[in-house]
Amino acid sequence: MLEFPLLNQIKGPEDVKRLYPEQLPGLCVELRRELIKTVSANGGHLSSNLGVVELTVALHRVFESPTDQIVWDVGHQSYVHKLLTGRVDRFSTIRQYGGLSGFPRTDESVHDPFGAGHSSTSISAASGLAAAKRIKGEDGYAVAVIGDGALTGGLAFEGMNNAGRTQDKLIIVLNDNKMSISKNVGAIARHLMVIRTKPFYFKIKDIAEVVLAHLPYLGKKIRKALVLSKNAIKNYLYHSTIFEEMGLIYLGPVDGHDIAAMERIFRRAKAVGRPVLVHVLTVKGKGYSFAEQDPRAFHGVSKFDVETGDAIAPASHETFSAVFGRTLCMAASSNPHLCAITAAMAAGTGLTDFASQYRSRFFDVGIAEEHAVVFAAGLAANGMLPVFAVYSTFLQRAYDQIIHDVALQNKKVVFAVDRAGLVGQDGETHQGIFDAAFFNTIPNMTVFSPTTSDELRNMLFSAFFECNGPVAVRYPRGCSPALPADFCPTYGHYDLYGTGQADILIVTYGKLFAEAAKAAQMLRKEGMAISVLKLNQIKPVDTVCYETAMFFSRLYFVEEGVRTGGVAELFCAHMAERGYRGACHICAIDDTFVQQGSVDVLLHLLEMDAAGIADRIRQDMATPPKHSHFDERRAQ
Amino acid sequence: MLEFPLLNQIKGPEDVKRLYPEQLPGLCVELRRELIKTVSANGGHLSSNLGVVELTVALHRVFESPTDQIVWDVGHQSYVHKLLTGRVDRFSTIRQYGGLSGFPRTDESVHDPFGAGHSSTSISAASGLAAAKRIKGEDGYAVAVIGDGALTGGLAFEGMNNAGRTQDKLIIVLNDNKMSISKNVGAIARHLMVIRTKPFYFKIKDIAEVVLAHLPYLGKKIRKALVLSKNAIKNYLYHSTIFEEMGLIYLGPVDGHDIAAMERIFRRAKAVGRPVLVHVLTVKGKGYSFAEQDPRAFHGVSKFDVETGDAIAPASHETFSAVFGRTLCMAASSNPHLCAITAAMAAGTGLTDFASQYRSRFFDVGIAEEHAVVFAAGLAANGMLPVFAVYSTFLQRAYDQIIHDVALQNKKVVFAVDRAGLVGQDGETHQGIFDAAFFNTIPNMTVFSPTTSDELRNMLFSAFFECNGPVAVRYPRGCSPALPADFCPTYGHYDLYGTGQADILIVTYGKLFAEAAKAAQMLRKEGMAISVLKLNQIKPVDTVCYETAMFFSRLYFVEEGVRTGGVAELFCAHMAERGYRGACHICAIDDTFVQQGSVDVLLHLLEMDAAGIADRIRQDMATPPKHSHFDERRAQ
Repeated sequence: MLEFPLLNQIKGPEDVKRLYPEQLPGLCVELRRELIKTVSANGGHLSSNLGVVELTVALHRVFESPTDQIVWDVGHQSYVHKLLTGRVDRFSTIRQYGGLSGFPRTDESVHDPFGAGHSSTSISAASGLAAAKRIKGEDGYAVAVIGDGALTGGLAFEGMNNAGRTQDKLIIVLNDNKMSISKNVGAIARHLMVIRTKPFYFKIKDIAEVVLAHLPYLGKKIRKALVLSKNAIKNYLYHSTIFEEMGLIYLGPVDGHDIAAMERIFRRAKAVGRPVLVHVLTVKGKGYSFAEQDPRAFHGVSKFDVETGDAIAPASHETFSAVFGRTLCMAASSNPHLCAITAAMAAGTGLTDFASQYRSRFFDVGIAEEHAVVFAAGLAANGMLPVFAVYSTFLQRAYDQIIHDVALQNKKVVFAVDRAGLVGQDGETHQGIFDAAFFNTIPNMTVFSPTTSDELRNMLFSAFFECNGPVAVRYPRGCSPALPADFCPTYGHYDLYGTGQADILIVTYGKLFAEAAKAAQMLRKEGMAISVLKLNQIKPVDTVCYETAMFFSRLYFVEEGVRTGGVAELFCAHMAERGYRGACHICAIDDTFVQQGSVDVLLHLLEMDAAGIADRIRQDMATPPKHSHFDERRAQ
Repeated sequence: MLEFPLLNQIKGPEDVKRLYPEQLPGLCVELRRELIKTVSANGGHLSSNLGVVELTVALHRVFESPTDQIVWDVGHQSYVHKLLTGRVDRFSTIRQYGGLSGFPRTDESVHDPFGAGHSSTSISAASGLAAAKRIKGEDGYAVAVIGDGALTGGLAFEGMNNAGRTQDKLIIVLNDNKMSISKNVGAIARHLMVIRTKPFYFKIKDIAEVVLAHLPYLGKKIRKALVLSKNAIKNYLYHSTIFEEMGLIYLGPVDGHDIAAMERIFRRAKAVGRPVLVHVLTVKGKGYSFAEQDPRAFHGVSKFDVETGDAIAPASHETFSAVFGRTLCMAASSNPHLCAITAAMAAGTGLTDFASQYRSRFFDVGIAEEHAVVFAAGLAANGMLPVFAVYSTFLQRAYDQIIHDVALQNKKVVFAVDRAGLVGQDGETHQGIFDAAFFNTIPNMTVFSPTTSDELRNMLFSAFFECNGPVAVRYPRGCSPALPADFCPTYGHYDLYGTGQADILIVTYGKLFAEAAKAAQMLRKEGMAISVLKLNQIKPVDTVCYETAMFFSRLYFVEEGVRTGGVAELFCAHMAERGYRGACHICAIDDTFVQQGSVDVLLHLLEMDAAGIADRIRQDMATPPKHSHFDERRAQ
């Protein structure tokens, strides 16, 4: 407790307001110490949170949360906000099963008015909050805090385009830290750089601020007129900002580590009376030397040693992402048409080497998944072989483009879908549990799902050089699981582990095969005749798989994804059409989202680990099979 | 043939180039006559095509299609392009089954390098085409032609943000006709208006053009330097355009009905050597007085009388869209929190009355479906009741936002999904065949599917006032179908037409119930015992439906949507899990897209009309049922 004398007094935003300005630097030191301590122990997002310490303090001194509503874009930078809004006590549980979320959640605090996890939503969400306040006649501002990286997403642009024409109490805080997750890209980034390096902007700002500071008793209208006229003058004298073109009042840039300056500019923003954008310059990783030097490395981290900045990781094998990156480089060396595309996730998807080795064929498009997919379709239309490497959860954003621009035109685009299945601590917004189901709905798609990195390599080469039309290869976070010694992969459309003469068949795919195989081993020892059908190509499913399944009297499906629309349901329906008369049971994620926690814990809760699968089968074997009523009716 | 002396000479773009400038006005007159003649007979998009007659001619005189590749955004304005690229002979078949598409299609002509149908994709697609040309060292420009309406979509912004930093041969032609489908909205629209009304822009342009015109032998580099310096001067002297902020060279605005001026500006654009935006001002409906006066009414039309401009429509009942609009107004009168949101489709979705009666609660966000959904979630978070009225096919664009911002946060947003199911002549890109399947994959969603407009009204009230969490009500294009006189709707989760004692059960929902009921009537006359289960709430399906189906020995599913992930598959899988031992057959759209044609023709081809359903059942009854192999194995 002595370690954090100021922070421990903060039970809510009102306590932040109560502190004297002289105490604020001390509070910020404590906040940073708490951030480093907890993230080094739990893993999580560090650089972005270190960068917004002063910004968050300033916001809570000027705005009245929860009447004023602060919406954090993406939300991985909301740790400081959590610490200042009554969640200090539980902060050590962040990202753990049952603990605080690593993102804002409406059910966690009244100070989280809107949840997040994916990028570029905050302006639209805050616009909705502000419009509702206007219509209902309720008090307060809606404040969207958005990074320069998130600004590369088209949704942010749609939000600004609509915000610029209202009179709502909407304030957009642009947290410009000069980088998104990967190197920031595109015209917006360059435009921000120009603004930052034009000294006369600062000059105008300073003059106006001095004038405003010396006239504290100005009426609201005069203050507003001054702010507006300052903008008008700037527009006539100088180059305007893109935000002014979009119809927003632009204030800034302001030093994002100067609390007093930010408080002044936020007060001015409140006085304007229409949507304002405040441009705040922050330094990612601020206050922790290792993170300041290499903010990207400390963006999202696992446990690390505070003294050295080194990761405390168990020695591990090569991740699927790394295997993908290496395979892609290998393929690119022999195929000059192979291109790689990422939506601001070069490092995460394993593309760092490709980016440096094949610079002219590498495209980081910013956080713009829709553009990435249509751009890929354009490349494919002119004979290139584009590979879009993307996390499963983010590919959801390009669903229509996969249908309309890729599948409908039957373009050969390869989707390298990383983090497919459960991802763990990032929680609900990031679990890759939808891709198998949404790919299922898209005609012309071929979808592969490897269990091991050897299979991944193999399937990637099939995707690159054998398949026609669009292909997805979806692979999990982490490394190859351990498989039974007696399992020999065929690298075909499916593998049968066991014999076709058993009674029970488990049907599964991807990482879960390891659990299913373990369950089968356990049950075999108990005398059950059980096999496992591992699907390697999950769309379309090879009809031989259905034929094989017909020989078994009980089918158990295990799927690390949503049940409705998933592979198990599809398989089951095909069996019904083929007149299958055995028992069927599907274990999948049934009409629910999956919370945060380690993947092992989550699989256990979902009864998808070896023990869960085995238990379910044992239980079922103990109960008599069900029948159609029409059998009974006829029997009467 | 005498009617079109010039047009009939045009076998391809080279013939457009061969004409003398004096002949061009005559060609344009013929093009307009052909457009009006064909669209008045077939229905289709008129205003937008009349507006781009001169623009299209100018493009084909300056660019060398197919080496230069022209990408039409949305593509409904590509009729003139089709007429100039060797498709005059087949033009009368446009939008008919087996005829020319109403949109660009790569399989229709080498002059269509990229297909379209949905908005805002052209810049990204053309960027891909241009990048591929650069990497492969191939000749030619990629030209994206995009309207000001399409520019309100975030995808267009993502495309520009990425285009602005390349050196590729990319030319963006902004076809600014001062309106999108609905009234154009937002900051971009206002910004374009400012540019249009600033005379000094024209002045600068004129001076530069005179200089360039008098120096025809200027080298490429000097010409480029002049264009760039003109931009530089403009930036310093005057307010810049948003396109310049995005890193593009901006040329224009130019009169989009002055072919010579456009030819000059396109030649300059080619000389710049990096991505350029050419701002072209056109008049929608140009040259047909009725369309010029009311371009919106002639945007997408049915058959009409050329002399009067009046629609030749069979007297019809109120459409589902109209019923929705009327019901919404009724509900809004008693509920002050009800809001309506449209993405540039106010008239199409039946919101015209709501827009005028409840102006402060009506939001047209432009062609920005993603923003619409997140904005709706924001409204809902602060206690409003937002209703997003949208065509099924366009809602695909907001799949992730429905998951991440609505369903995950369990926000009460109502989706009024119009044009669900087959839409007919607009063809492949517009068929609403995915929504039932993609909604299936989303936790917390409730989905209703009415057959009649009475049911629509009823379900909307349930959605507004009874349901918690997100709800979709999906209804077809057109009007209520005729139902059997002996069918009495219960307005519950399902209806059973027939008895629970029959042998055969058809399971269906929505409009197709009319066909299924007709098929049942036919088969009953032939002595079959057959009932129809009509699902009204398709997600989640009431478990009573499964229990009911257990009593029948044969189940036939008929679904006007994709099979994989659809309701039939889900139902069938549940039956298998319940130990159902009867026969199952699914008739749905199986891993394919559905071409254009009248809905009746398409349903017939898909064997989903009454005759097709009845035939399938007759056939099946004549063949013996299949069995599992394990039954046989045991029998041996």
